[in-house]
This record gives sequence, C-alpha cells and structure tokens, in this order.
Amino acid sequence: MTHASDESFVAKTQKEITLFSHINALLGWDKEIYLPHAGHDERSDQEALMSRLSHEQLTSPALQKAVKRLLAHKTTPHQRAILERLEKDIQKAQKLPPSFVESLSKATGQAYSVWVKARKQKNFKVFAPALEKVIALKQKQSDYMHLKGHVYNGVLDDFEEGMTVKQLDPVFDSIKDELIPLIHLIESSPAYRQKKIKIEMNEESQKRVGDVFIKRLLDPQRSRLDLSIHPFTNTSGLHDVRITTSYERGFEFSFYSTIHEAGHALYELQMPQKFANTAAHNDPSTGLHESQSRFWENMAGKRESFLKFYQPMIQREIKRKISLTDLHRAFNQVERGLIRIQADEVHYPLHVIIRYEIEKGLLDGSIQVKDLPREWNDRYEKYIGVRPKNDTQGVLQDVHWSIGAIGYFPTYVIGTVYSAQLWNQIESDMKNIDSLLQKGNYTPIKKWLEKNVHQYGRTMSADQIIQKATGEGLNAKPFLHYLTNKYAQLYGE
Amino acid sequence: MTHASDESFVAKTQKEITLFSHINALLGWDKEIYLPHAGHDERSDQEALMSRLSHEQLTSPALQKAVKRLLAHKTTPHQRAILERLEKDIQKAQKLPPSFVESLSKATGQAYSVWVKARKQKNFKVFAPALEKVIALKQKQSDYMHLKGHVYNGVLDDFEEGMTVKQLDPVFDSIKDELIPLIHLIESSPAYRQKKIKIEMNEESQKRVGDVFIKRLLDPQRSRLDLSIHPFTNTSGLHDVRITTSYERGFEFSFYSTIHEAGHALYELQMPQKFANTAAHNDPSTGLHESQSRFWENMAGKRESFLKFYQPMIQREIKRKISLTDLHRAFNQVERGLIRIQADEVHYPLHVIIRYEIEKGLLDGSIQVKDLPREWNDRYEKYIGVRPKNDTQGVLQDVHWSIGAIGYFPTYVIGTVYSAQLWNQIESDMKNIDSLLQKGNYTPIKKWLEKNVHQYGRTMSADQIIQKATGEGLNAKPFLHYLTNKYAQLYGE
Repeated sequence: MTHASDESFVAKTQKEITLFSHINALLGWDKEIYLPHAGHDERSDQEALMSRLSHEQLTSPALQKAVKRLLAHKTTPHQRAILERLEKDIQKAQKLPPSFVESLSKATGQAYSVWVKARKQKNFKVFAPALEKVIALKQKQSDYMHLKGHVYNGVLDDFEEGMTVKQLDPVFDSIKDELIPLIHLIESSPAYRQKKIKIEMNEESQKRVGDVFIKRLLDPQRSRLDLSIHPFTNTSGLHDVRITTSYERGFEFSFYSTIHEAGHALYELQMPQKFANTAAHNDPSTGLHESQSRFWENMAGKRESFLKFYQPMIQREIKRKISLTDLHRAFNQVERGLIRIQADEVHYPLHVIIRYEIEKGLLDGSIQVKDLPREWNDRYEKYIGVRPKNDTQGVLQDVHWSIGAIGYFPTYVIGTVYSAQLWNQIESDMKNIDSLLQKGNYTPIKKWLEKNVHQYGRTMSADQIIQKATGEGLNAKPFLHYLTNKYAQLYGE
Repeated sequence: MTHASDESFVAKTQKEITLFSHINALLGWDKEIYLPHAGHDERSDQEALMSRLSHEQLTSPALQKAVKRLLAHKTTPHQRAILERLEKDIQKAQKLPPSFVESLSKATGQAYSVWVKARKQKNFKVFAPALEKVIALKQKQSDYMHLKGHVYNGVLDDFEEGMTVKQLDPVFDSIKDELIPLIHLIESSPAYRQKKIKIEMNEESQKRVGDVFIKRLLDPQRSRLDLSIHPFTNTSGLHDVRITTSYERGFEFSFYSTIHEAGHALYELQMPQKFANTAAHNDPSTGLHESQSRFWENMAGKRESFLKFYQPMIQREIKRKISLTDLHRAFNQVERGLIRIQADEVHYPLHVIIRYEIEKGLLDGSIQVKDLPREWNDRYEKYIGVRPKNDTQGVLQDVHWSIGAIGYFPTYVIGTVYSAQLWNQIESDMKNIDSLLQKGNYTPIKKWLEKNVHQYGRTMSADQIIQKATGEGLNAKPFLHYLTNKYAQLYGE
C-alpha cells in the first residue's frame, strides 16, 4: 500500500462511516415523528443494518493497519489530530465483542417495551427483571472497557470520555450541599408565596416568537424545525441539522425547548468543515454538547437582557402589557416537583444527582434493582422534599435505563456546569453582552462559541476544551455563584 | 455450502437488499418534502451509497452461485418462483458495468441541474448538450441490454419488462386514431361550450374529503399522507407506505391525486406477505403499478356512483347544493392544453404518445436532439391543436429525460389501458359494483384486485397478469370503448 492509497482509503472509510451515521440519524428522526405504527419492526432492522455496516468499517483490520502506517509517517498536526482520534475510536470499538453488542441490543430492546408496560401499570416490579439484565450487561461492558477506578467509569466513558467518578463526586456533592439550603432560603421568602405568573399563547403565536429566535441563531439553508412529543436535535447531514419542539405544553415549554435544541444545533452547524467526514467532526462528549444548549437556554435565555428583545413580540401575541421584571420572573420561577424534565434551574441538578447516586450504586452492587423505588423515593424526600405517589411519577419516569443509557444522566449537570463556566468567561471577554442580547444580535456570541468550543471538534476532550476556554476544568463554583446571585435578586427582599 | 446454509444466505441477502431499497426510499421521500436546501449534496452521496451496497449484494458471485445451487435442487413452486425472479434480477444487474452506471448517474445528475436552469430561461438550447449526452448513454445502455428488436426495447425494459415497440406501436396508433376524432366530436357539441363547473374549497375542507377516501382504502397503521409539490407514493418499509398530495391547486387536484396515489399505495400494501423480503415482493412493471392508480382515479373515481358517496360531504364543505350530474360533469371536463399533468382523460394519452414517438426517434437516431422543440411543437399542433409559446410550456415541461428516465412515459398509457381492461373484467365479475361505490364500500373491490393482480407480486410479467385476469394482454379496445361511451353520454345530445 502506498501512502497516497492509504490516505484515500482512510478518507473514503471515514466518509462512509459518516454517511451511515447520518442515514441512521434520519431513520431515527423519522421514527420519532412520522413512521407509521406498523413500520417500527422493520425500522429497527434498517437501523441495525446501518449500525452494523458502520461498525464493520470502523473495526476492519485494513483500516487499523492503514491508520497505523499513516501515523508512522510525517503528518501535519491537522492530519495527526484526525488520525489519532480515529485510532482511539477503532480501539474503543474493538473492546466490545459483536456478540456482546448484540445481547445488549436485544436486552435493551426488550427492556424498553417492558418499561412502557410498567409505566402504564405504574408498577416498577414489572420492569425490575428486565432492568436487572441490563445492569448485569452494563457491568460486563464496564469490564470490557477496562478503565481504572470505579466500575461506573466504564459506562460513563460512553458519554463523557475521560471523566471519572473521582472527578465528579466532589463536584456533585458541592452542588447538592449548596442547592438544598438555597432552595430552603427561596421557599422562605415572601416573593416565593406570590402568585405565579403564566404567559399563555396559542400555537401560532408560540411559533412566531420561537421562529424569531431560530432565525437569528441558525442558518435556514442547513436546518429545520419540526414537531414531536419530546424535543430533540438530529444531525442527518453535514448541512442538515434538525430540531423539534412541541406547542402543546404552552409558550414557556416551546420557547425554552426551542432555544435549548437550537443551542445543540448551532454546535452541530459550527462544527469545523475542515473536519468534515472524519472522526474529528463530532462532539467530544455529551456533556459538552449539553453545555451548548444550556448556554442558550439558561445562561443567555433566562436573562432580563435576552427577554427584553422578545418583550414587544410577546406583548403583541398575548395582547397585553407585561413588565420586563414580570417576564423575567415568569421564566425563573422555583417550585418543587417530582419530574426531572419539568424542574426549574435550581432543582434540576438535584434530580440528576439522585439518578447519578443510584446508577453508581447499581453498578457497584451497593444498590439492588428490587430496592429502587425506596432508594428513589427516599432521596426525593430528602433532597427535594417530595415523595412520588406511584412509580410512574418516580423511578419509571425516564426512558434512559430501559435503553441502556446508564452514565448519561450526569452529562446533564456536567453540561450545565460547563455552560456557567463558559458564561463567566464570555462575560469577562465581551463587556457588551447584555446590550447584544437586548438587540437580539447573537453573531458575536456565536463567533465566540465557535472560537472557544466548536472549532476543536473532537480533537480534545471536553474538559481540555473547557480548560482552554476558561482556565480550568469542570468546576461548579461559577454555576453555584450564578444561581445564588440570581435567585437572591429574584427572591430576596 | 449445505443446502440450508445456501437458503439462509440467499434469504439474508434478499432481506438486506430490501432494507437498502426501503432506506433509499425514505431518503428520497425526505428529500422531496423536508430536506434543508444545503443538505442535497450529501443526500445524493447517501443515496448512492445505499444503491451501491445493494448492487454489490445483488451482483456478488456468492449469491449467484448459491441461487444456482438451490435451483438445481428440488424446490416448492413458491421457492422456485422467488429464486427464478432473483436470478433474472441478478442477470439484469450484471448487464450494466459499474463504470457505465457511474457515468450515467453523473450525466443525469448534471442534466437535471441544467434542465432546471433551462426551464427558468425558457430555452431548450441550454439543455440540449446535456440531453445529447444522456441519449448517447441510453443508446449504449440499450446495447448492453442486448434485447431483440427496436433499440428502444432496451430502455423500455427498465420500466416495462418484456414489453416491446412491436407490441406497443399498434396499440398506441389505435388510441391516436380514435381519440383525435373523439375530441373533435366533443368539441363540436353544445355541452362543450357550456360554462365549466368549478368546485372550490379551502385546504381544511379538501383534506377532510380526501381523508375519507384514504381511510376507506388504506390501513392507517401502515400508511401516511404528507404534503409535497408533486404528489407521489413511497415505500419505506413493508408496513410503511406513504403518499403525498397538495392542496394548493384546489379540490379537483388534491382529491384525484390522493385517489391516484392511494391506488398505488394499496398495491404496495396488498403485496403478498409470503414474498416479503424477497425479489418477488414488488411490481413486475411500472405500467401495472400505474394501472392500479388509474383504476381508482379514473375508472372508479370519475363514475357517478363513486361521486354519489362524496356528494353530501362536498356539499357540506362548499356550503351549497350541487347535483350529481353537475358533480360528475365537473370532474369529467374536456379541454385542450399544453401540459401533460393537467390533461383530462381524453387528451392525456396523446401527450404521452407524443413523448413516446419522440423517444423512439431519439434512440434510433431518426430525431436529433437539436430539433426537439420543432418535433414537439408540430406534434402538439397536429394531435392536440395547441402550440407552445415557449420551451418551458413545451419540451422542457417534464423532468423525466433529464434524470435519464427514457422509456418511462409509455407506462402511463399502458397503465391506463390495463386499468380499463381490469375495470371491464371487474364489472362483469361483480354485478353490484356501482352499489358498492355508492356506499363507499371498497372492501370487495380491494379483495378482487388482490386476487387478480396484487397476489402475484413479481412472479409473472405485467402482461401475463393482465392476461390471467382478463383473458388477453395489452388491448386498447376496452379503454377506447369506455371513453367513447362516457363522453358520448356527457357531451352527446
């Protein structure tokens, strides 16, 4: 094999892997939104075929050898970054035997349908045996990964490469330790007992306001918006990034889910084209991706200056005046609740930390599946002061475990923490950020994110990128500082 | 290789080919309806990858050998029918060298964009050089196919396997010879000069009426309706058949395009499950598929008895009374025109025959590309009595040639002719067909079509299926008889 033919073979293979992944994304997008009911079985076969072909390409000995040969030569730093990333992916993909991947896929396929049934019956016991199988396989997966430290590291790595329990525990503990008293403080304030402000809008109005934001953030030639029950972002092509929202749950939900998903989409769209069709054209971690959605949804989207730009439109749609203070309050209300996806900014991390603690326990054997409802409910009572009346409101509320996504939950808080670190930095880099937000001018902010986060693709770990951007790795202080300040203002004297 | 392992290998390969084809269908469906503008380039790559992988499977020596070995053994007639169909497909696929397929795909990709440009400029000369390349490649394709008779047979075979110019010419000539005088007769009648009846409805009303038909014809668990500029039917899974319509052009367009596409979809949905995931699970020809859409659109859908069922709904939506006679007239009006897809039932075949004559001439060299506007316009003047004012109204109106679909046009008339033959037969088999239509009860008709057409999948040629169903192959007489009778009634004294 000549150097040139190795190069073109590796490029062609990476391109095909990209195409498989984008086709699979479209199959998934369609499944969530349009697929007729009876089409689901074959759709699973279609998705499995794309995954298998992609995996075969990635783990082929020919690819591995060609990459090795190329890396032994002199390369540009750009080429080396891509090749090293690809080699890591190959090694990681080889760790799991195909037979194991197949059993996991079967077990989670089954567990998902059992979970749906258990939810309907509001009975965790229906789900428990299937979940036990999934947990056993996840422990096995962690063994195959062969990482140092806590057994949980081996599943966390699927979503947050390089992150460890040792690094996460103190961060999550500090969040728990500060948020619980902060919530008590908020709840004891007179403002907390005031009537909640609700902004009600019909679907057309919701769409008009949401579309203004999208138009200012995303290139309409490369993106689109659809409706689905659960909002999501989907990348079906380098220039084909799709988000969804739902107008059925009212303006606050549709507006902030749109902003959230658009934040994800912006990251996908600003992924550097020089990495197109290579292993480096991707995010390094789920948490870093989440930081981009949280950046726009919370750090920018819940500020007064941001809302000032939308105030006239909102007034027009609801056909009455609303003060900026009231608008700001409306979207920053704190309230206890049982459901993670309905939680406010202050409660949200506690919902996630409960799941993180339980997942670790399930993996290291200190928590048994059969005890989950009690473990769950006790923590909800202790951390949030509410106790689910049934399992569907409690331990059965999220799909993640049923589909084998164990290790995913912490990325929600990692992303939130990163987003506050990034906001801290952008505020000090860009003194006029509030005046930009007031004008709905997001271009300089998009450029800042591109330069400080998006441009690296997957050539560094999430923590390295955050370190480079802000001077330190995962650190909860900016997030806690932001919450304390903001809610002191909102709920203080 | 054991017999059992050959069997499972052949089954697995056919299943994968099916999956590739359905995935490709979804990629195409999405491209027509939802794909963001900038996503088109990569979408072509995605489609090309699916086609290539499918072609590689179909033409692999391993498959061919396994099929041969299986056919040498004793098999059930069912297995034999599938294997023989598969073997034919393999042989056909091997006739075209991959390098030729690639040049054709490049040439048509280019020709399509040039066609779009030429249409905008209303100038055929812009398109001519690209079309010349396509024609040259199509002549070459015909050489590779190596079929007997007229060079056109080699491209017709792509769409209408086994059909020949020798069989088509007399049928098309007889249609031309009868329709031109029939139109003159219609045009000289007093009824022709009466005011045209137009049924106007808003989009919601159009949707309500169209949905009633769909609900009665198609299983909602296995199908769906979307909107697109040009209506089409798409099979993205054995249980996932999608049709589209458009409400922008008014009720007549949306209603009849819905009925037309639903007819296609019914065929797809009634394809026998015993052939699922094999080469036999498909239509034998584009014309036979078209016969299923025309059967519902024209033969059933334009009858008084059919319309009687929809009359109350239509009256409710337009908020006025309309007599059944007027309703029947409204959807059976005859008018000269330049545009094929806007043509009425009587003019439609003439539009197609013009294209068929020109295609044959282009392939055998008796017509030059540069002369196309004149060849086209002269025929329109002679057969239909209208002359295009510019090329966009004329020779540039259809996409087919630009995408290399030469040999496709005749299938529209073949399907129409078949549909009249089938109607003739069902009327004699089922004496109460008008009373069924009046009640909107399509179940017995669906069963008749399943038994007489759909059940064979692709195990016989279209002409064999029609012969078995009606006692004779392609025959224009029932169609001409039907038109003459119907329009004598509508436009007679």
